[in-house]
Amino acid sequence: MLSKAQIKYIRSLTQQKYRKEHNVFIAEGDKIAREWLSGSQRLQYIIGLPDWLEENKALIAGHNEAAVIAAEESELTNISTLQTAHKALLVVEMAEHAVTPYASGWSIALDRIQDPGNMGTIIRIADWFGISQILLSPDCVDVYNPKVVQAAMGGHLRVRFCEVDLYTFVKTTSVPVLAATLSGNSIYDISILEEAVLLIGNESKGLDPVLTELASHKVTIPGKGGAESLNAAVSAGIICSHLMPR
Amino acid sequence: MLSKAQIKYIRSLTQQKYRKEHNVFIAEGDKIAREWLSGSQRLQYIIGLPDWLEENKALIAGHNEAAVIAAEESELTNISTLQTAHKALLVVEMAEHAVTPYASGWSIALDRIQDPGNMGTIIRIADWFGISQILLSPDCVDVYNPKVVQAAMGGHLRVRFCEVDLYTFVKTTSVPVLAATLSGNSIYDISILEEAVLLIGNESKGLDPVLTELASHKVTIPGKGGAESLNAAVSAGIICSHLMPR
Repeated sequence: MLSKAQIKYIRSLTQQKYRKEHNVFIAEGDKIAREWLSGSQRLQYIIGLPDWLEENKALIAGHNEAAVIAAEESELTNISTLQTAHKALLVVEMAEHAVTPYASGWSIALDRIQDPGNMGTIIRIADWFGISQILLSPDCVDVYNPKVVQAAMGGHLRVRFCEVDLYTFVKTTSVPVLAATLSGNSIYDISILEEAVLLIGNESKGLDPVLTELASHKVTIPGKGGAESLNAAVSAGIICSHLMPR
Repeated sequence: MLSKAQIKYIRSLTQQKYRKEHNVFIAEGDKIAREWLSGSQRLQYIIGLPDWLEENKALIAGHNEAAVIAAEESELTNISTLQTAHKALLVVEMAEHAVTPYASGWSIALDRIQDPGNMGTIIRIADWFGISQILLSPDCVDVYNPKVVQAAMGGHLRVRFCEVDLYTFVKTTSVPVLAATLSGNSIYDISILEEAVLLIGNESKGLDPVLTELASHKVTIPGKGGAESLNAAVSAGIICSHLMPR
């Protein structure tokens, strides 16, 4: 059973300021919880239905640092950040954001991505294609927002985040920089790149024109239909699938 | 100004049963509203801030059938289905779902897609690549759900929907059927197809194994990372970008 203080604490973590203050975030749901239990990141709370805790006791045994709490469905509903509560909820200690970006391989760089679903889906795309670094402009949605964690499906465990001034980074990096735009060269006409930074812009405003100008390649996904643009995460996935080494 | 009865009516349209009863749905936001104003679909209400109505009066003039109502910001917030209200909200008459599917070109067929964001993003993908038909299994999320309309960004105007028994359709169609799965042939090894039906499955359960078996091609997006799968909409976009005629 959860105490009132614990309920209050966990509910406070839907807000970024409390996540920052306590340096923790929430990972919710059977599949995602098991991903984190299998990882080495430190956990603060492991809260689950009694059956779920029993089923996963081997994984839980590896996390002595965490308080394990059996909860009823109504309690999980009470602390859930989702519309329908799941069988388990973890409070996970944040990994520090990296300070210095890698200067090799593939990265995705996000310019003011605001939608938590898009951010999470982009983390999942990076995790799928084996991209281990996401660069964030200072005004992106928090990667530890519960909806981001949900949509990323455990991607946080394998992708590192680095908040950077994108202008300085793009100007100084030795890696090719791809700007996803509506009027660049077709992805069908560009060769696979061994390393690159893929710049993806804000959902409604697109990529900052200054960043687009600084990029070494402007790339476009050709379309024959009536839509004005593609979703930011879908664009990132399509470009990675065409231009990354296979 | 909106009457109490109008507010009640519009708020009721967040629920599918009232949308079905009245055969209308909500399209919200400046950009989306202007898309519908430019189209020929019948509108029931055009509600907007006075400035917005003034700016768009040429487009609005084409819609004699609609009641035009100037509203204050607080009124728009009151009827909005979104977290932040926009400058305009339309009540649009539904187009009938098509009864008979096309049997040529490219289509996307959705098996139990539940997430409104995914559904809307897939409609937007179809609209981008010029796919004019989406086939829906009977238990997909309503394509007129406000979150779907929002994410589709006007795609409803150019994509037609057809609810079908996917099993019968897949068994009898003369067009190649592609099943997006985790263990098929690499999309990098398949030639472009002049026509096809792309089957995309439920977000957590994947595609029904019976449908997968019935498909003529099983296709996979190769990934080198740690993620178990890709988001349904992202998968659809990637497969279209590789296998559709360019």
